Amino acid sequence: VIERPGSRLHRFRDQEEGMRMGLLGTGPVSQRLAGRLAGLGHEVMIGTRDVEALMARTEGAYDGSPAFADWRTDHPTVRVGTFADAAAFAEMVWNATAGAASLEALAMAGTRNLDGKILVDVANPLDVSHRMPPTLSVCNTDSLAEQIQRAFPGAKVVKTLNTVNARLMVDPAQVGGGDHHVFVSGNDQEAKSEVTRLLVEGFGWTNVLDLGDITSARAAEMYLPLWLRLFAAVGNPMVNVKVVW
Amino acid sequence: VIERPGSRLHRFRDQEEGMRMGLLGTGPVSQRLAGRLAGLGHEVMIGTRDVEALMARTEGAYDGSPAFADWRTDHPTVRVGTFADAAAFAEMVWNATAGAASLEALAMAGTRNLDGKILVDVANPLDVSHRMPPTLSVCNTDSLAEQIQRAFPGAKVVKTLNTVNARLMVDPAQVGGGDHHVFVSGNDQEAKSEVTRLLVEGFGWTNVLDLGDITSARAAEMYLPLWLRLFAAVGNPMVNVKVVW
Repeated sequence: VIERPGSRLHRFRDQEEGMRMGLLGTGPVSQRLAGRLAGLGHEVMIGTRDVEALMARTEGAYDGSPAFADWRTDHPTVRVGTFADAAAFAEMVWNATAGAASLEALAMAGTRNLDGKILVDVANPLDVSHRMPPTLSVCNTDSLAEQIQRAFPGAKVVKTLNTVNARLMVDPAQVGGGDHHVFVSGNDQEAKSEVTRLLVEGFGWTNVLDLGDITSARAAEMYLPLWLRLFAAVGNPMVNVKVVW
Repeated sequence: VIERPGSRLHRFRDQEEGMRMGLLGTGPVSQRLAGRLAGLGHEVMIGTRDVEALMARTEGAYDGSPAFADWRTDHPTVRVGTFADAAAFAEMVWNATAGAASLEALAMAGTRNLDGKILVDVANPLDVSHRMPPTLSVCNTDSLAEQIQRAFPGAKVVKTLNTVNARLMVDPAQVGGGDHHVFVSGNDQEAKSEVTRLLVEGFGWTNVLDLGDITSARAAEMYLPLWLRLFAAVGNPMVNVKVVW
């Protein structure tokens, strides 16, 4: 990881100055990321399609997470707005929407609000419409991350964290003493370095492996079918892999 | 792993009686497997399309392996025959051909010579025809292992070892003290147990994870793009993953 004295994260570390983080999506992944980022001192806004509908929702998520309004009560500093509000607010944007909804959500966020910004893509293009285990809606010769990069060429897309579940994303020490890997893919080396620094210094990852340019996101996304089988085999979604060589 | 007193491998262990192993394919993967199996005391026959052409070949393989005839000189007990010869000879058949050639090679081996036998599939359906990194010729909603199982319903297909390179297949201790994983997929639980026993007692694998039925081979095959990126990232094909949870 290259030290860049001018970066926002560097200034954050040195001067206790938070970055403005915009998270698209309101599910467990977004909640875990938002809670962690806010806890680190960053300013966080969550973006959604319809704020009123979101705040009125009373049911929790598939994984036992609380309804959004209840979660929000415990995280009063986290702002809530539209996709466009969150992206406009943010210096760093996170795509934490469901893969099937990502391109539409990002379109609603707006090209102008994404241009020049790091766009951290943690989504998986899972097609859960017909049967289990889910298949991928794009793979092999393309990936969700590449689709996003093509649709928003001004954004600096960094694919990461899609290979682990929400809790592990922000607290890798919960399994194997934290000695396992997360990957980054992207065309912009500085963007990857900045995200890597956040993963290491903010979230506590010790092993971050750079897989290459944005086409390498295919590899990280195509790992999902194995992740789903590992989840089933060990009976626990808190599962990851350590690369050994 | 279930202990089955009647199995051939059990008798082998107790009575020094080898199994008859038939390996389809003559490349580095087949050579490594054949050498190791012969070293364990099994009777090994390698099957190929054209024996005369194979023995006349003077060039080695992409990974620095010797020409087949030279390799054979160092392994005089290994028999060589046609695909059909090797499958007819074998009690356990190994598909160690290139993925693109596997179905044709197995067809030449012959349905009758595969019926009722364990068919260990270590191949990957890599499409290396157009560019690097290679893509998969089948994935997501199907896999090479499933294609093979459908084409040869009487065979007990077990997918394994396709996630590591040839040297590591038969000598996992070469990286990370051997503390990393290999997977098995297949519909026949006894066949998976027998293959697992060979992986553990014969090849020295300590961590063998059962991913599920033959459809789970999709997961193991779709890991290949990540494996190729890991190979590039660490600069070494002797790379594997340890599952932690």
